[in-house]
Amino acid sequence: MNLLVENGFDINPFCGGRGVCGKCRVKIGGKLPGPSRSDSKILSPKELEDGYRLSCQRAIEEDLEVILDEDGEITGLASGLKTDTKLFPRFKKECIHLEKPVLNDPRDFVRRVHDELGTKNISFQALRELDLVNKKKPFTVISKAGEIVGIEVGDTKEGFFGLAVDIGTTVVVIYLLNLKTGEEIDVKTIYNPQRRFGADVISRVNHSIQNKDGKNELQKLLLDGLNSSITDLCSKNGIDKDYIFSVVIVGNTIMLHTLTGINADSVARIPYIPVFSDFLKLKPAELDLEINPQGEVQLLPSISGYIGADLVADMLAVDFHSLKGAPNMLIDIGTNGEIVLGNKKGIVACSTAAGPAFEGANIAFGMAGTGGAVSEFSIEDGGNAQYKTIENKPPRGICGSGLLDIVAELCRLNFIKPTGAFYPPEEMSDWQKSFMTEKNGAPAFRVVGREESDNDREIVLAQKDIREVQLAKGAIAAGINILLEEAGLNFADIGTVFLAGGFGNYLNPKSAAAIKMIPSELEEKVLRIGNAAGEGAKLSLLNQEFEKQANKIKEITRYVELSVKPEFQERFVSAMEF
Amino acid sequence: MNLLVENGFDINPFCGGRGVCGKCRVKIGGKLPGPSRSDSKILSPKELEDGYRLSCQRAIEEDLEVILDEDGEITGLASGLKTDTKLFPRFKKECIHLEKPVLNDPRDFVRRVHDELGTKNISFQALRELDLVNKKKPFTVISKAGEIVGIEVGDTKEGFFGLAVDIGTTVVVIYLLNLKTGEEIDVKTIYNPQRRFGADVISRVNHSIQNKDGKNELQKLLLDGLNSSITDLCSKNGIDKDYIFSVVIVGNTIMLHTLTGINADSVARIPYIPVFSDFLKLKPAELDLEINPQGEVQLLPSISGYIGADLVADMLAVDFHSLKGAPNMLIDIGTNGEIVLGNKKGIVACSTAAGPAFEGANIAFGMAGTGGAVSEFSIEDGGNAQYKTIENKPPRGICGSGLLDIVAELCRLNFIKPTGAFYPPEEMSDWQKSFMTEKNGAPAFRVVGREESDNDREIVLAQKDIREVQLAKGAIAAGINILLEEAGLNFADIGTVFLAGGFGNYLNPKSAAAIKMIPSELEEKVLRIGNAAGEGAKLSLLNQEFEKQANKIKEITRYVELSVKPEFQERFVSAMEF
Repeated sequence: MNLLVENGFDINPFCGGRGVCGKCRVKIGGKLPGPSRSDSKILSPKELEDGYRLSCQRAIEEDLEVILDEDGEITGLASGLKTDTKLFPRFKKECIHLEKPVLNDPRDFVRRVHDELGTKNISFQALRELDLVNKKKPFTVISKAGEIVGIEVGDTKEGFFGLAVDIGTTVVVIYLLNLKTGEEIDVKTIYNPQRRFGADVISRVNHSIQNKDGKNELQKLLLDGLNSSITDLCSKNGIDKDYIFSVVIVGNTIMLHTLTGINADSVARIPYIPVFSDFLKLKPAELDLEINPQGEVQLLPSISGYIGADLVADMLAVDFHSLKGAPNMLIDIGTNGEIVLGNKKGIVACSTAAGPAFEGANIAFGMAGTGGAVSEFSIEDGGNAQYKTIENKPPRGICGSGLLDIVAELCRLNFIKPTGAFYPPEEMSDWQKSFMTEKNGAPAFRVVGREESDNDREIVLAQKDIREVQLAKGAIAAGINILLEEAGLNFADIGTVFLAGGFGNYLNPKSAAAIKMIPSELEEKVLRIGNAAGEGAKLSLLNQEFEKQANKIKEITRYVELSVKPEFQERFVSAMEF
Repeated sequence: MNLLVENGFDINPFCGGRGVCGKCRVKIGGKLPGPSRSDSKILSPKELEDGYRLSCQRAIEEDLEVILDEDGEITGLASGLKTDTKLFPRFKKECIHLEKPVLNDPRDFVRRVHDELGTKNISFQALRELDLVNKKKPFTVISKAGEIVGIEVGDTKEGFFGLAVDIGTTVVVIYLLNLKTGEEIDVKTIYNPQRRFGADVISRVNHSIQNKDGKNELQKLLLDGLNSSITDLCSKNGIDKDYIFSVVIVGNTIMLHTLTGINADSVARIPYIPVFSDFLKLKPAELDLEINPQGEVQLLPSISGYIGADLVADMLAVDFHSLKGAPNMLIDIGTNGEIVLGNKKGIVACSTAAGPAFEGANIAFGMAGTGGAVSEFSIEDGGNAQYKTIENKPPRGICGSGLLDIVAELCRLNFIKPTGAFYPPEEMSDWQKSFMTEKNGAPAFRVVGREESDNDREIVLAQKDIREVQLAKGAIAAGINILLEEAGLNFADIGTVFLAGGFGNYLNPKSAAAIKMIPSELEEKVLRIGNAAGEGAKLSLLNQEFEKQANKIKEITRYVELSVKPEFQERFVSAMEF
């Protein structure tokens, strides 16, 4: 597993290599070694027979042939709202040609540049560069907020780019933008390289607490991932890295702590206090980020330990904090379900530990939304199952939106009780029974591979998987409930329910309402906004006025800590019902 | 010479080792080598016989015993006006003890510190330090302009110091101040280590132009000198270098260029354009200066290539730019004679190439104002010479104030004509003739060693030396003249004439008026203010409001370039007369 992850293969060890999630299974070529205890426990007899083994449980003692499932491109997560803002980047690039100095005019060279460009200060680095540049020829001046920060020989004002980065727990998206035109040039999506130490943030923080060098490992993995993405983007688009001046980064609070090498253990433990949450401006060298050394890296502010800069960016993207009229709701479902509610007068926010079920973790056949994932599912009258996979590839597993659809259908067609348990066979009709099988001694629903003639791999949804969905949707529903109460509002008062995040963009609101993740009263109000966090980062990259907006959001948002609410536990348990 | 300078001995090679100034002479012990061509040309037969040789002209080929003249302490140059200002340093040091976080209060740790101290931002370095400090115990926060820049374990708020530095072409003065009390703790005066490449700034700039690594050599010499002075001051006073946070530096424009490693050749050549002249703020690491890495080094602004930050500091020290009523004049005589004239309504400034005569260069027996320098001189009626030496040590040479007194007496007692030439012997009386001798075939005046019985070394003032004084005083007198014309003022309009600089503090205004360096109309208005540049630097260190004052001075001061004035050359020549 380590070798595969290190070398960039598409392996998602959700459990961080503890041998319990099964996501790192690979097919062994040549002589097949006997199954380990974890192999037998996690993999089906058919998988074992077909030569699958858990790569996290296997030390390499001699040359070994390993066959991977087809590589999945991460799709869809990068797209979102259309970025549309006036162009007002933090840096300026201007080319000037000084007049020849004469005796009557004692102005120094720096002053001559200031007088041409209206700048007021100069960094020492830029002063050194100005000293060395041939001042009889045209040169290019890079400035920021009236301070000259760099000088380049000749006219290089076209070389002016920036990056917007959304660091998700699972996936990192890097957008390359032209700061002169505002145009999005390219986008690169990679798995968060930290997932090698666990699918969820808490596992990663634990790794950093338990291992002396763990914090640095987490930081280095992420930065290496960013730097190699920058290299790829630049070489693909023929851009010099030194022409990247500005980087805006969003992500959840723990991701931003691990990115900067700041201890996140105080966020992971009661009372969940971040070390920092305000806007942070860094020199590229402070992160060893390979862009122009005179550039700047900006981290958007977070609200609290579990309402991160990604949520702030979501809100920026839809102008959430400026919307007048009815209060709106924004839900971002990832490993946590973050919910915000309000309008320009004030915002309340909470975070629920939904768990990474909708990202594929803890679900037997769960996977990210890549090629071959079952993304839509329905059962027609008479018992014909219909499903769609991403990119129409042969089915490999189930992604979040598929999971939601399946559970919704299981509710609607009475496969499961309101408690989430499958009805016993004696209470099922024959067509229902034809869907049922067993997994680890418990009933399971066959999503794919029901008929003998079906050549596709059998994909099932186990009783345990339904429990995971219940925990996730119960947490979100309880959060919505409590937040409305905090604000003294009813369903009818709500204007729009923005659904953000890669999963949010694909889920079927009808299914979400059917399993009571979202109250049915809000179903019609749902607007899916895709990767709004990435959009917020892009807006902030192109127009520095969004810095003020982000600070305003932080200022007017009140965080509600659910764990101190006595009523939360009860609401959560009752919201787990279907 | 190089070995002696590198090892910190008191050697002043004014000519930069070209074998023409004679200031690097040392006595050779043991077997005496024959004189070189330069030795014979520069040293007197008696000196050659006594075993003196020029150290700059001698390669060391085997072990050699060298006897130096007694080491001279540089005195007097550090003293000046009394520093008296309110305490408002750029940094703050405060000790805090955070309350234990609770669940109801999601504020991050940075915010908790901001809320305690009223700060608003934090540097990334300080964030890392805050991350690592034990937040359950008291810690100390260093901030600057509302930004937290450092965290120290425990209560260290007493460890709070700063340096004011005056970099003269010849001498560097470093003041150590307590930023908590404003008290001046200590001061260290060293020769400018760059003098090894010449006494005047132009020789040094030429060195940096002619040698590939020359610019770096000049910078390194100066920084090494500063760093070893910091080490000395700190160890002598039991202070940790990391407790020095703030450094304010003044000096002439070329010194500040060489200090920062910026090319000064554009200042040295027509049209004399500095690369920078505004306020400059540097990180200690940008100069490799050994103070707290989170501290700051500030360079006061210069007016032009030849009106440096030292003059701005002079003006700060006497509040020159705020004085109401009659316009005042300030004269700083060093290698250049800088003159400013004006009041709060506006200031004009000029710089005259007075040459380093008053600092001891180009004068056969010239020396700095250290122990053994003839500093006062007069001839009583009847021809008895009276002189004083600094620290009453046996006479070694003549410093600036002594030089001025001697020439004034030569004028008064008709040893020399208004043109500067000695009267021929036939026009001198016998008592006058008893003072006369010869040097290099021209008449010379015996300052010390006239009587056979006198055991002191013979010290003479040669005809050539008088020419040097004429050039210097002519330049200053012409500058005063033109500046008054520029401002449309007469002598009567002037309030006070401030005389700044180490030399200015010791010169006799009567002598200065007698040789017509200063118009006799201004003699009574002279106020000697000593090393006012150092005072200005100290004020600016203790009270950041002086930054605004310095900028105001720069704004209202108009530089007058004498070399473009057609009348200057004529005034200069006529002002050379006695």
